[in-house]
This record gives sequence, C-alpha cells and structure tokens, in this order.
Amino acid sequence: MLRTHTCGELRAGQIGQEVTLTGWAQRIRDKGGMVWIDLRDRYGITQLMFEEGSSTPEALETAKKTGREFVLTAAGTVIERVSKNDKLPTGDVEIKVKDLKILNPSEVPPFMIEDETDGGEDLRMKYRYLDLRRNPVRKSLELRHLINRKVREYLDKKDFIEVETPYLIKSTPEGARDFIVPSRMNPGQFYALPQSPQTFKQLLMVSGFDRYYQIVKCFRDEDLRADRQPEFTQIDCEMAFVEQSDILSTFEGLIRFLYKEVKGIELGELPHMTYDEAMKKYGSDKPDIRFGMEFHELTDLAQGKGFGVFDQSELVVGINVPGGSEYTRKQLDALTDFVKKPQIGAKGLVYVRCQADGTFKSSVDKFYSADDLAGWSARFEASPGDLLLILAGETAATRKALNELRLEMGSQLGLRDKEMVAPLWVIDFPLLEWDEESQRYHAMHHPFTSPKPEDMDKLDTAPGEIKASAYDMVINGVEVGGGSIRIHDKNLQSKMFDALGFTREEAQAQFGFLLGAFKYGAPPHGGIAFGFDRLCALFGGQDSIRDFIAFPKNTSGRDVMIDSPSPVADEQMKELQIKLDLRD
Amino acid sequence: MLRTHTCGELRAGQIGQEVTLTGWAQRIRDKGGMVWIDLRDRYGITQLMFEEGSSTPEALETAKKTGREFVLTAAGTVIERVSKNDKLPTGDVEIKVKDLKILNPSEVPPFMIEDETDGGEDLRMKYRYLDLRRNPVRKSLELRHLINRKVREYLDKKDFIEVETPYLIKSTPEGARDFIVPSRMNPGQFYALPQSPQTFKQLLMVSGFDRYYQIVKCFRDEDLRADRQPEFTQIDCEMAFVEQSDILSTFEGLIRFLYKEVKGIELGELPHMTYDEAMKKYGSDKPDIRFGMEFHELTDLAQGKGFGVFDQSELVVGINVPGGSEYTRKQLDALTDFVKKPQIGAKGLVYVRCQADGTFKSSVDKFYSADDLAGWSARFEASPGDLLLILAGETAATRKALNELRLEMGSQLGLRDKEMVAPLWVIDFPLLEWDEESQRYHAMHHPFTSPKPEDMDKLDTAPGEIKASAYDMVINGVEVGGGSIRIHDKNLQSKMFDALGFTREEAQAQFGFLLGAFKYGAPPHGGIAFGFDRLCALFGGQDSIRDFIAFPKNTSGRDVMIDSPSPVADEQMKELQIKLDLRD
Repeated sequence: MLRTHTCGELRAGQIGQEVTLTGWAQRIRDKGGMVWIDLRDRYGITQLMFEEGSSTPEALETAKKTGREFVLTAAGTVIERVSKNDKLPTGDVEIKVKDLKILNPSEVPPFMIEDETDGGEDLRMKYRYLDLRRNPVRKSLELRHLINRKVREYLDKKDFIEVETPYLIKSTPEGARDFIVPSRMNPGQFYALPQSPQTFKQLLMVSGFDRYYQIVKCFRDEDLRADRQPEFTQIDCEMAFVEQSDILSTFEGLIRFLYKEVKGIELGELPHMTYDEAMKKYGSDKPDIRFGMEFHELTDLAQGKGFGVFDQSELVVGINVPGGSEYTRKQLDALTDFVKKPQIGAKGLVYVRCQADGTFKSSVDKFYSADDLAGWSARFEASPGDLLLILAGETAATRKALNELRLEMGSQLGLRDKEMVAPLWVIDFPLLEWDEESQRYHAMHHPFTSPKPEDMDKLDTAPGEIKASAYDMVINGVEVGGGSIRIHDKNLQSKMFDALGFTREEAQAQFGFLLGAFKYGAPPHGGIAFGFDRLCALFGGQDSIRDFIAFPKNTSGRDVMIDSPSPVADEQMKELQIKLDLRD
Repeated sequence: MLRTHTCGELRAGQIGQEVTLTGWAQRIRDKGGMVWIDLRDRYGITQLMFEEGSSTPEALETAKKTGREFVLTAAGTVIERVSKNDKLPTGDVEIKVKDLKILNPSEVPPFMIEDETDGGEDLRMKYRYLDLRRNPVRKSLELRHLINRKVREYLDKKDFIEVETPYLIKSTPEGARDFIVPSRMNPGQFYALPQSPQTFKQLLMVSGFDRYYQIVKCFRDEDLRADRQPEFTQIDCEMAFVEQSDILSTFEGLIRFLYKEVKGIELGELPHMTYDEAMKKYGSDKPDIRFGMEFHELTDLAQGKGFGVFDQSELVVGINVPGGSEYTRKQLDALTDFVKKPQIGAKGLVYVRCQADGTFKSSVDKFYSADDLAGWSARFEASPGDLLLILAGETAATRKALNELRLEMGSQLGLRDKEMVAPLWVIDFPLLEWDEESQRYHAMHHPFTSPKPEDMDKLDTAPGEIKASAYDMVINGVEVGGGSIRIHDKNLQSKMFDALGFTREEAQAQFGFLLGAFKYGAPPHGGIAFGFDRLCALFGGQDSIRDFIAFPKNTSGRDVMIDSPSPVADEQMKELQIKLDLRD
C-alpha cells in the first residue's frame, strides 16, 4: 500500500508514530512559513502541517503549489494538535509532514467538493465522478451497501438461496415496455431485458429450490418521471409450500431486522389494511399512516339540500385538519388552487371552519344550516378549532384528489416526519382492473397472481370483483415491496390468461414454458419483490433515489457523464441485420 | 407453512412426533396393503409409509394413485424404521402417514429425476426446471451461493464496498462485440450492455471509493464455444493507492480464504511466474502446474545434422514423458495424429524412446547418432524408461501445439487430478500484441493497463517490447482471474490510445469521460476480475460451467426452455424506430 494509515484512522494514541497518508487535498491554508492541508479519503480527513525545519524544503514548496483535489502522499510524524478540532474524529492530531509528493494534480473542479455544493443537478451528473466524492453521496452508497449486506444476512439465515436468473430473456407484450436486444447469431430475433425475474423465480419453485432470493437489476422502458430509472434494483424473493401469512411474517421480519440493524429502530408488528379500506380511508393503496386525517364520507348528509355540485356527485368526502380553522382565506384559496391543478383535477374545494366558539363558517353556508354543519362536524369527529376540507365527484377520482390534499396538509402541518417509521401491509388487492382503452381486464399485479381461494368461482361470473392473494408493504406512504401468492395450477393459469384476453396461442407462445412446467408438479408458492433503490432512499431519509444510485440516468434516459445512448457504427448494425427507420 | 418439517430434518430424536411434510414423490412402492413413498424436497428425502389401519382409506388410496413427481402433503407420526437406510440422513425414521393430499399431480417427466439421468443435454435444457430438481445440479447452484457468500464475507471484512454500476452503457468498438439496446426515447441511438464494468470501477477510484467490488453480470456477443455464455458473472474488484503486490496479496488471500472455507484446503503462498517463462516452459499463459513435463528447447542440439525439418525450424522443443518408453508404435501414431489435428496444427511428431537398457530408439535415427540422442536425453533430464516427444516449427505455433500435447499426456497419465489444487500468478504480460490483420497493436489486457514503470519510455520506441503491470491467477490450467495496475495519468492514457491507433477524436468520443476524470485527481489504482462461473465449476470439480448457471444458453445463444431470442411485434420495432435488414 502507498499508505500506512487511512485519513480517518489516527488518534492521540498514535502520537509519535511515523506514518504515510494518501488522499485528496480538501483545503489548503498557506501562512508563509507554515502550510496546512486537510487530506481527505473515504475514511476521513486528517490535517497535514508543513513548516520550515520539520518539512524538507521540497515538501514545503510542494505544499505551497498544491491545489484543491490534488492527490498527495505525505510522510511524517503524528503530533498533538494545538487547537483541537472536536468535529473531526482525527481532530486531536495532525501530521508534521517531512516528505510530500503529488501523485496527481487536479484542475479546479467545476463545483465545490463539500457537503453543500454549489453544483447544480446537471453539472453534478456530468461530473458524477466528482459528485461521488462528496460525503452525502458517498454515505448514501455506503448505506446501500450496508442494507444489501443485512438483507443477505437475514435471508441467508432463513435458508434462502441466491440464484442468478438470466438477463437476456424473452419479450412479452404484457405490462410495461421491454428493452430489446437484437441477436446477431439469430438474425431477426431479439432478446428482452427482464422487467423482473418473475417467471424464472416461479420455475425455481417448480424446481424445488424452496426459498430463492436475488438482488437484481430490472429494466423498464417507460417514460421516466422525475424519480424513475430505466434500470433499477429489486430484492426479489420467492418461497414454496407457503400461505400468504408465511410470506408476510417472513418479510415483515426482514424489514424489522433491517430497521433494527441499520437504524436501531424497533418496529412492532405491521398492521394489515385491506385495499378497500385503504382506498376508502386514504384514497390510496399506499397510505402514509404517519398521521391521521382519515377520510370521512359525507354523501348521505350532504346531498338533497339543494347544493347541485354535491347532489350530482357520486361521492362527497373530506378530511378534518386538526387546528386548521385559523387558515386564512388566502391559504384556503391556495388549497383550492392546489386541488384544481390538472394533475389533481378536482373542480373545487369546500371548507368548513369549526370555530373556537363552537359555530361553523363554511364556503357553502348558502345551502347548509348550522345543524347540517354540526352533523358534518360530528361525522368528521372534529373539535372547535378544526378545519374540514371536502371534495366531491366521481368516487375514484375524488379519492385520488383528496389523497393528494391530505398529503399536502400533512406536509404543511409537519406531520410527515422523516424520523418516524409507519409501515403496514396493504392486502386483498383486486385481481383485475378494467381498462377502458383496450376494453379488457388487466392484471392488477401480474397474470400469475392467485385469486383468493374464496373468490375462485367468480373468474367466470364476476371477474372484476375477485380479490387477489396480493399484498404490498407500504412505509411512510411509499410502496417498498409487493407480491402475491402465485397460481400453481395449470388450468387456473390458463383460465387467468383467458380472462386477460390472451388467445391460447398467445399464452402458449409467451408463457408456454411456465404452463409446461406446471404440468410436472408445481408446488404452492408465492413471493415478493422490494424496490431496493427506494428502500435505500427511505432509510437515508430522502425522497429522491438519485443519490442512492452511483451512476443514474436523467429523465430522458441519458447518462450525461458517458454520453449514452449514442449512435452505433454502421458495421455493427449490418452485423445485427437491423437498420434505422427514423420518423421525420 | 404447509409443512412442520422439511424432508431432510427428521431423526430418531423426533420419533413419536406428529409432523406434516411436503415435497415431491421420488419413488413409490406399492405392496398392496402397504405403500411406501420417498418424499423429496431441497433438504433431503424422507420415507412415507401407508398401511391399512394407520392411514385413512383415502390416504392409502391417494398413495396408490400417486405418480413420480406428484407434489404431496403428508401428515402422520415419526416412527422408527424397521430396515434402516444408512445412506440417508433421515434413514433411521419413516412417517406413518395418516392423511395424504395431492397438492399437484405431475405428468411422467421426460427424463429420470436422478443423480444419473437418462436425459440428454438437449432434453435437460428444454426442461431445465426439471433438470434443476436433480441433486448434482441443485448442489452446484448451492455451491455457487456458498462461494458468493464467502467472497462477500472476505471483501466486506477488507472494507470493500459493493457498488452497482449501470447495465445500459455505451458501445465501444474495442474488444469483443457489444450487445446493443435501441433507445426508444433517443431514436437512432443505442445503449450497450457492459462487457465489464471496467471504466466505471476506475471512475469509482477517481471518486475516492478506495475499495470496490461487485458480483455482476457481463455480456459479450461472441461466437460461442462449447463452454462460453453470452452472459456471464464476474467478481469485479478495484483498489486505490496500491501497487501490484498489494493486489496480488489481497486476492491471493481471497482464494486462500475460499479454499479453506469451502473446501477445507489450506493453500500456501502462490508462486509467481512471468509470462515469458510460462510461454517458454509450458507454451501457455495459463499453465497447468499440477504436473511437470516442462518444455526443453533443443534447437541448438538438433540443428545442423542434416534433418531438414529441424534445420528449417525456428524452434525445436519437446517434453519428457516419464515412464513413457513403453508407448507402442500404435500409441505413438495416435499422438502424431493428435498433434496433426487442424486445431493443433503441428506437421509431425518426433519421438525418442529412452530404453531401459540405456539405448535410444527414435523416429529420426537416420539423422542422429546415439551420442546426439544421449545429449538430447541429458537436456531433457530423462531417465531410462522415459519418452521424449519433440515438435518443431515457428516458435509461437510450436509452443502452442506442444502445450496441447503436454496437457493430453497429462490427462493420459492421470496427472490432472481434480482433487489437487495448483494455483499460481502469471505476471509481466506484454502490454501490446501486434495484430497482422489490422496491422496495428492491440491491448493484450485492455487499453487502461499500465506499462511497467521501467518500460514507460519504450512506448514511443519499442511498444512491442513493453511489459505490463498485468497479472492472471491460474488454477489447474484455468485462468480464473486477471487484472492490472491501471494508467492514472491522462497524458499516458492519451499516449496509450495513440499507440493503439485511436485518433484523438475517437478516444475522446469513446472514453472522453475517463480522460476527463483523470484531469481531476485520479489516484494510483488497479484491480482484478474473477470469472465467477468458472471459479464455481473449478470448486465443483467440473470442466463445464453449464450446471453452475441456473438457466444457461446453448452454443447458438438460445435459451431453448423459454425459446428465446424470438421475433418481436412490428409495433415494438416501430416504436424503437428500427427495422430488420435481413440478408438473404
């Protein structure tokens, strides 16, 4: 090694030792006869001190011409620091440097390598290799490594085997778009990159692997929202000979283990909430239950009093904002603007102030009496000083909009505390959802999800009403994982493909291998997959997954650092027997 | 869980317990009033016993109609087995079954699910999910998981951080062919799948990550030889502030740890052999040193005696086969045929029998006296009873052919013992190799490999003579890992690209980000990558990597189980703005 110690290692106990350190110059202070350099590496920062007499003339001269981010090797003696720095673990000592060598100079970096940088997002991404030198980004990736290790530790102990499944697989039109890969050896044919190892992990269950996991990259060619990546990492798991409760307890155990080991937090048992209840009470299948403000339905009380908007609505529903009655007219107008934003889509917002004196003041006083409003207030379990916010319209859209409003109020009132952890299982998802555009059912989870045993017979009669043995783990309003008990019966799987509008030929062409496997003794099985990037961001207390990925892509799917994707050579296209077919 | 115990768990201590087991019917014996079923799962086999009286009539009936590979759940009592089976860990007990249920029936599998199967390679691959039920295949993948865990354990302890690098990267024409991925969001542009994370791990060193590893899939679109896969797994590692010796000792430590933990074998220090010595003594840069039979050069002694073949050869070289003088004429003819095979390419084989009485008998007695042959024998350090096998021709080709002959003789004489472990480092590889076809130098390792410090100045004058700080780890004639100290100086890297015939523009377009990174303080660094599939096969004592990969592809790059690659829908091509351009 070019060093004897790292920059995070030396303490008072090593005073007097001869050491050699290597690292980057974080900060240089030149006082003429003396120079100090803060030397940084992954492990910490140690102060180097140069002075005439102790340092060779060459070392002092080199120190003086050292710039920020120069790579240095410094040899000298550990001494006690006169003015100690209690913010640094190494702050009791410094190195009286004898010899100094520049291992590599550096141009002035385009942004400060500091916790708070002056670099904008674009600049940071272009020079990601410099951004990664910053403490917060490095720590995020160290956290990711720690969580990765702990996940493995838990699953290994529970007899799970990691099995690597292939990356060059087969394109299936179901679900999101696949990335495809032309095969040179099979001209005109393509591999697809996996959206998940779903079918392979099920085959491993058919093979008797019993308990499988994999921390694995998956790929989806979707239009990217701010915080989606075309490639992302899953903790992918599957178990055989289980019922839903076994999977929930095993992976609830994983999350409890992670919070304990990584954050020192003891989680209790995770509450279960049905999909129907989550939609009714929170308007979302991933409710943030760090705070209350549950939905209260008001349709029966609000209709028939002459207020046309409510009378014509399928659902009238609201939340009680505790202590919100002091919201000003301006604040309420801002909330109205918020719910009317196109992405939220409400037509308007009705409010009722439950005033301190027990009276009510609402935006619909024209239509409702004080008694009416008192009835609403009772339904909302409101107290004087609270504020009722009410939306109305078509059920699904209104719940969705009220969910957004609830989250906004949670944020405004500081109720979405990053230090709190509020996990739950959302269970009993619908098996199918009707797609207006294609006029057919889609699988809500995926086509391999099993209906709940008691709903099996509805597949022919009322497919839209079937509940699935499917579950999501939700923490602080984020869906961190989801899974299901799978179908293991070939006839049921065929029926499921029928219900999804696959012809027998299509089902056979795309999933023939799975249907084939089910002929040879498939055990009951089920599993789950966690979004690893998202889980890491959650543990890191951040909303964006960006800094938990070493080299992320931007919202156009570009890696601006390596400038990819990029055109390829004609020769390569010719070998692959494809050509461009660009639209104008 | 649908079971209380696994099929590998029960022992005499549990006699009398009520248990429920699940698994597959491995073997069914029906003796009328009694039926036995061997129930198998991943953990073992337990015998189920059914008899009138103990079992319900339904259970007995169900047992009688159970076929091979049916999935069962059986509830009953653990009893002592009358005729114990000491080949099974569970062989002291059996289950007196009360209730039996078929969880899933099975068609008769297309081949036997036994250690030695009657299924051919093609059938096994088509029904890989059944092949994976066989013990040897499952054990191979369990071994893989164990090695994976142990690799992580060692590297984690040494402060390495796993960082996931991207899979959708940039195509570079250097090296093997890339698989490319059309980008829908960037029409006309393509990602490439990584042949290795080389440049990314170097960037991580520039970022100060100090010690990186990743167990990662890599991709090469090459024409596949019998034992290559288009996707394969690497243990990819990189360290900063190191010299070559640090990397060798760190990863020699890894291999020693793995052999100790996985196989209980203590390896000593690994010998170092230069590339030149390996080529001279073994004709290979991955010598199998489980046995001797080193090369002896004979050019000086063999020329000038009137034997034209030798006189016109650049090199005359041979091996001494100990105790081989009894090889019959027929055996020697077979060896001659062997070396004349096109893939070996020798013109012929000269032999000298060192007979028991001290005389010599050779195929070139016409040209050489007994004294000449005695001189050869001395050079070969041969004893009476040995056999000298000699090839001649152009140096590189002759060494290559003699390497093949040496390995063949090692195999014939049983010297390539799978139980032996003979690892070594091959070091000091040439930096560049001349490519006749393109009339330019290629990087022997890759363009980022550093010349040895003492050879730096030859880059302008004698590039072909430069040795690199590059090393391979070779075990039993298999290259399991290779790496190098990297260039970290931007000027040297530019010079290297020059030497490889890149224009400045090409170098900038392809590797601009790396050259850019080197401007901002790149530390000295180096690394290594191990072929994980190959390493697992080596530990498993097998030549083929096929069974250490759950779902391998065949030599046409096809997954015959899922039938991939396959055509994709026109709609998908249209979205990607590409079309087929098939040659007739």
